[in-house]
Amino acid sequence: MTVDLDRIASLLHQRQPGYSLPQPFYNDPDVLAFDLESVFGTSWLLAGFEAEVPDPGSAMVFTVGRGSVIVLRDRDGVLRAFHNTCRHRGSQILPDGCTKVSRLTCPYHQWTYGLDGCLLGAARMPSGFDRAAHGLAPVHLETVAGTIYVCLADDPPQFASFRAALEPLLAPHDLGRAKVAVTLDVVERANWKLVMENARECYHCPAGHPDLRVSFPMDYSGSLGADENARSIAFSQRMAALGLGVGPLEGAWWQVARFALHDGCVSISPDGKSVSRIPLCAAGRGDVGSLRWALEPNDFCHAAGDYVMAFSAMPTGPEETLVRLKFLVHKDAEAGIDYDPERLIQTWNRTNDQDRDLAQNNQRGVNSAGYRPGPYSEDAESNVMRFVDWYCDKSRRFIEARHRRMETIGS
Amino acid sequence: MTVDLDRIASLLHQRQPGYSLPQPFYNDPDVLAFDLESVFGTSWLLAGFEAEVPDPGSAMVFTVGRGSVIVLRDRDGVLRAFHNTCRHRGSQILPDGCTKVSRLTCPYHQWTYGLDGCLLGAARMPSGFDRAAHGLAPVHLETVAGTIYVCLADDPPQFASFRAALEPLLAPHDLGRAKVAVTLDVVERANWKLVMENARECYHCPAGHPDLRVSFPMDYSGSLGADENARSIAFSQRMAALGLGVGPLEGAWWQVARFALHDGCVSISPDGKSVSRIPLCAAGRGDVGSLRWALEPNDFCHAAGDYVMAFSAMPTGPEETLVRLKFLVHKDAEAGIDYDPERLIQTWNRTNDQDRDLAQNNQRGVNSAGYRPGPYSEDAESNVMRFVDWYCDKSRRFIEARHRRMETIGS
Amino acid sequence: MTVDLDRIASLLHQRQPGYSLPQPFYNDPDVLAFDLESVFGTSWLLAGFEAEVPDPGSAMVFTVGRGSVIVLRDRDGVLRAFHNTCRHRGSQILPDGCTKVSRLTCPYHQWTYGLDGCLLGAARMPSGFDRAAHGLAPVHLETVAGTIYVCLADDPPQFASFRAALEPLLAPHDLGRAKVAVTLDVVERANWKLVMENARECYHCPAGHPDLRVSFPMDYSGSLGADENARSIAFSQRMAALGLGVGPLEGAWWQVARFALHDGCVSISPDGKSVSRIPLCAAGRGDVGSLRWALEPNDFCHAAGDYVMAFSAMPTGPEETLVRLKFLVHKDAEAGIDYDPERLIQTWNRTNDQDRDLAQNNQRGVNSAGYRPGPYSEDAESNVMRFVDWYCDKSRRFIEARHRRMETIGS
Repeated sequence: MTVDLDRIASLLHQRQPGYSLPQPFYNDPDVLAFDLESVFGTSWLLAGFEAEVPDPGSAMVFTVGRGSVIVLRDRDGVLRAFHNTCRHRGSQILPDGCTKVSRLTCPYHQWTYGLDGCLLGAARMPSGFDRAAHGLAPVHLETVAGTIYVCLADDPPQFASFRAALEPLLAPHDLGRAKVAVTLDVVERANWKLVMENARECYHCPAGHPDLRVSFPMDYSGSLGADENARSIAFSQRMAALGLGVGPLEGAWWQVARFALHDGCVSISPDGKSVSRIPLCAAGRGDVGSLRWALEPNDFCHAAGDYVMAFSAMPTGPEETLVRLKFLVHKDAEAGIDYDPERLIQTWNRTNDQDRDLAQNNQRGVNSAGYRPGPYSEDAESNVMRFVDWYCDKSRRFIEARHRRMETIGS
Repeated sequence: MTVDLDRIASLLHQRQPGYSLPQPFYNDPDVLAFDLESVFGTSWLLAGFEAEVPDPGSAMVFTVGRGSVIVLRDRDGVLRAFHNTCRHRGSQILPDGCTKVSRLTCPYHQWTYGLDGCLLGAARMPSGFDRAAHGLAPVHLETVAGTIYVCLADDPPQFASFRAALEPLLAPHDLGRAKVAVTLDVVERANWKLVMENARECYHCPAGHPDLRVSFPMDYSGSLGADENARSIAFSQRMAALGLGVGPLEGAWWQVARFALHDGCVSISPDGKSVSRIPLCAAGRGDVGSLRWALEPNDFCHAAGDYVMAFSAMPTGPEETLVRLKFLVHKDAEAGIDYDPERLIQTWNRTNDQDRDLAQNNQRGVNSAGYRPGPYSEDAESNVMRFVDWYCDKSRRFIEARHRRMETIGS
Repeated sequence: MTVDLDRIASLLHQRQPGYSLPQPFYNDPDVLAFDLESVFGTSWLLAGFEAEVPDPGSAMVFTVGRGSVIVLRDRDGVLRAFHNTCRHRGSQILPDGCTKVSRLTCPYHQWTYGLDGCLLGAARMPSGFDRAAHGLAPVHLETVAGTIYVCLADDPPQFASFRAALEPLLAPHDLGRAKVAVTLDVVERANWKLVMENARECYHCPAGHPDLRVSFPMDYSGSLGADENARSIAFSQRMAALGLGVGPLEGAWWQVARFALHDGCVSISPDGKSVSRIPLCAAGRGDVGSLRWALEPNDFCHAAGDYVMAFSAMPTGPEETLVRLKFLVHKDAEAGIDYDPERLIQTWNRTNDQDRDLAQNNQRGVNSAGYRPGPYSEDAESNVMRFVDWYCDKSRRFIEARHRRMETIGS
C-alpha cells in the first residue's frame, strides 16, 4: 500500500465524535485502498453458507476487494479457504461461482494443488524445486451453525464470543438443511461506507421503505437497549417457551438479536405471511420473529422462520459498491411449488433498490464543496454511530500497528 | 484537497508567457482537483436566468464540479443560493433540473428547511439540538438584468464593476420577459481549458465554422482594441441613436461588448435573419448586432435582438467537460409558430459540435510525449492569452493565500 | 512525470531474481506512467512496414502510449517520423490510419508543414516569428528489410547489431513486395507486462493453444540454447542449402531465429499448409520454417514462407492493453482468390483470443491480496525471465540516469 498513512491519521483526527465522516472517507481513492487493507483485510467476513459447499470437493469463490478466496470442502469434509491465486505466476485458479473439483488445477500452466492446498504437480520445474514451499496460501475460516466466515489477516480478531452468541440462536434455523434459492447482485454508485451507514439505521425506513414497513418494526434499532416494552417482553417469553433465545448480544464487531415482527406477521414478506411452505425453523410453526445478526464492516442477515436473507456489501471503487443478497430456503422446497422466487425476494429486493437510490443520492451530496459532517441522531442512528466509531477505531489501530512495526524494524 | 501545491506552483513557474500551458495543466487529475477548488470554487459563475426561477418557490439546481447549488426564489421573491447538501448526512436535497417547492425536504431522513435555508424540522434529534446551527450553507448570489451568478467562495471577487458594465447594455434586451426555449448538453472529451481556449478565439473559425461564418465577423476578437474602422464607428453611432451602448468594457475576469454582425444580418442564424418573430430587444426593430459578455473561467453569452445564447463549460474529469448551451427567446414566443426550435439552435449547435471535434483532437495531440507549449498569435488569440494569463494569475494567488494562511496558523 | 522514482526503485529492489514481479508492477497507475516514459519512451518499437507507406506522401499514424507518431515517406522517398502534435497549440495533425498527403496541415488553425517537418505557413503570426524554430519534432526511425522501427528517445539504443542480425535472414522474405492484408485489434484487460510474459513462453501452449499446436513446436523457447537435436540440425542444413540463415542471434533487446515447424508443415495455419498461393519467400518453394524476430518491450513477428504475422502490445491503462496483429501477404495475392482472409488469420486469431483470456485471468489473480511473486521455470520460461530482467534493468538505468541528471543540474 502506497497510501500516506499520516494523511489518513490526520483525517481520522479531524473526525468529530457523533458526526458523519470528513468528505475524503466517502470518495477518495487512497482511502478506499486503505479500507481494503485495513478493514476488509483484517475483519471476519461472511463468505457464504455450508449449504453452498455441501460435499467433499465442493468449492466456491468469494470475492474480497480486488482478489478472491476459494472456500472448499476437502476430502475429509473439512472446510478450508485459500487465496485464489497460483503460486507460480499468480493466475486465478478457480473462476467465480460454485463448482466441484477433485484437485485445483491452475488453467495457465496446470500447476496442480490438492484440496488441502499442497502443490502436487508443476511441470518443467527443476529437480530441486521445493513444492512444499509453494502450496496455496491459506485463509482463516470459521463456521457457525451453517454459516461460513473468512478473515485474510494473519492474526484474525477473536471469534469465539461471536460463535458463542450466534450458535444457540441460529442453530434452530437448521441451515444445514438449507439451500441458496436466489442470489441478487446490485451495483450501487456509492462508497461502501454510505451503503453501510444506510444499512445500519431505519431512520429512513418510514418514508423510504413502504414494502419493508408491512412486516418490519420501523423503530427497531438492532442494538442493545431497545425498549423493554410489554410487546418485546411477551415475545421473549413466547420464544423462551419454544426454547429459542432472543438476545440481544453484541461484541465489538457483531450483533445478534431476535425481535418480533409486526403482530400477525411471521415473515419479512409482502403480506407478512410465510413465503416458503417448508419452514427452516421447526419451532413455533415458523412464527419466530426475525433473527438478525450483523458483522462489521459489511454484513447483516435476517432469519425468519421460513427463509434467510444475507446482505453483504463489497467495495469495487471509491464510489461503487457491489451489494449481494442471498436468499436461503429449505433444501426440499421446490421453486414454483413450495415457494415463488419472485415473492421470496420481493420485499428485500425493493427495499434494496430504494436503498441504492438513497445511497447514490447521499454520494452526490457528500461530493459537494458545501458538504460538512453532520450530527447523527443518538436515538435513530445508534448503529450508524457504532459502525463509524468501529471504523475509525479499527483504522487508528491499523495505523498504530504499522508505525509500531516500523519502529521495531528500525530499532 | 490533497494536491501538492508546490508541484502546481512549480508547473506555473515553468509556463512561458505567450505560450500554451505545460502538458499537466491539460490532463493531470491533480491539476483538475486544484482547478475545481482554486478556480471554480472562487469565481463568479453564470448559474442561469431569472426566467428560470420566476416565482416564489421556484428552484433550480446548478452543478459546479462534483457538487451542486440550489438557486431559488424565496417567499419574498428574493433570489438565494445554497449548497445542495443536507446538514444531517450530506444527502443531495433537490434533484437536478427546475422545480417548484414550498420547503426543502431532504429525501433521506426528511430534514426540512425553509426557503431561507433555516432548518425547520429534524425528527428524532435530541431536545437540546441546535437547529439554528444547521441551516443550509448559503452561497453568494448576484443578478444583473435577468442573469444570475453564484460564487462558492467565502469572500468572492468584487462584482460591482461587472454589474455596472453589463447592466446598461443588457437591460434593453429585457431578459425579464424571456424564457429558456432550449437547453443543449454536449460532453467533450477534452480538458476544460482546451474547451475554453477554443471558445476564446476565432482564429479557427474561417476553416472550422462554415455555419457561424454566415453572420459572425470572423476577425472579431471580443477584446478591447478591435479596429476602430469605419464600419464599427457607424455601428456605434447607430446604436447610440437607439440608446444602446456598445462598450467594449472589461475587467480582470469579464468582458462586455456589442458588435456589428455582417451587413444585412440581424441574428446569429443560418441566414442572418431573425429566428424568433417576437424580439427581446425592442430597439432598432431587433437589428442591434450581438452583445457578447464573457466571464472567466467558463462562460460566454451572445444576445442578438431576437434571442440569447449562453455557453458554459464545466469540468467532469481531467479530459472531460460538459458544455451546456441555453437559448432564450421572448416568453410569449410559441415554438412552431413564432420560432422553429431547430432553426433557433442550428448555428450554435453545429458550431459547438465542430468545436467539440477540434477540442478533442487538441486533447489527443496535447497528450503526446512530443507536445511542447507553443506560441499564441497576439493578433488572433489575444483572448486566449487573456484567459491563460488570468488562470495562471488566479492559481498563483490561490497558492500564495494558502501559504499565507498556513504561516498565520503556524506563527 | 510526477511518479515517485524512489518508490519505483524500492519496488525494483524488492524483486527476487527468477521470480515474477511484485504486485504494483502489474496494476499500479504510477508504474504504468513510469513504464510509458522509461520503457516505451526509450526503446525501439516496431511501427509497421514500408509496404504501408509505399509512395512519396504516404503517411501512417502509429500510436505510442497516449500520443502518436507520424511515419511518412517524403518527396525524395525517404522515410521520416515526427511527433503528431502541432507546434502551435498541440493539436493532433493527422488522424489515425494511413493516408496520402502533399503537406501536413493542422486541422485546427491550418499551420502547414512540409514532408520534412519544416513549418511552411502559420497565418496571423507576427512578422518576426521564427518559423525555423517551430518545425515538427522529429522521431528516430530505422528500417530493416521492409520493417520500420521508431524510438522516441533523444539518444536511442544502438540499432546496428539488430539490423545486422535481422537483415540477411529477413531479406529473402522480400517484404518490399508485401502488403498488409488484415489488421486485428484486441483489447485485453490486463497489464502490458502480463500480456508480454504470456507472449514470451510456450509453457502454456500445450493446454492453451490447440490451434497453434498443429504446426508450431510447443517446446520452442525462442532463445539461444535450444537443443541442437538431429531435427534442428537437419533444418539448418536444408536452410543453408537454400541460402537462408537460421541464427539464433540475440542482443540485449532483440532475438532473431529461424526454426522448423512440425514435419510436413510449411506455415502456421489450421493444417500446416500454405494459406497464400503466392509465396513471399521464393526459396525452398515456401517451405522455410518460421523466422521469428522479437523486440523488447512489446513485439514479436513470425515470417513463414507465405505470410508474416506481426504482434505488438501497447498499454492503454494499468490493466488494459491494445494488442494489434498485422498479417502481410504478397502484394499480388488477391483476397478470395489467392488467399482466404479468414483462413490467413485463423490460427493466430484464435491463439490470441486464448492468450487474452489467460492474461485477463492472470490479472485477476495477481490483483489478489494473496498474490506473491512466484518462481519461473528456467526450462520453460527463459524468455519470460529475459523480458522481466530486461525490464528491471532498463528501469533501474532510467532512474539512475535521472538521478545523475539531477546531480549534474544541482552541482
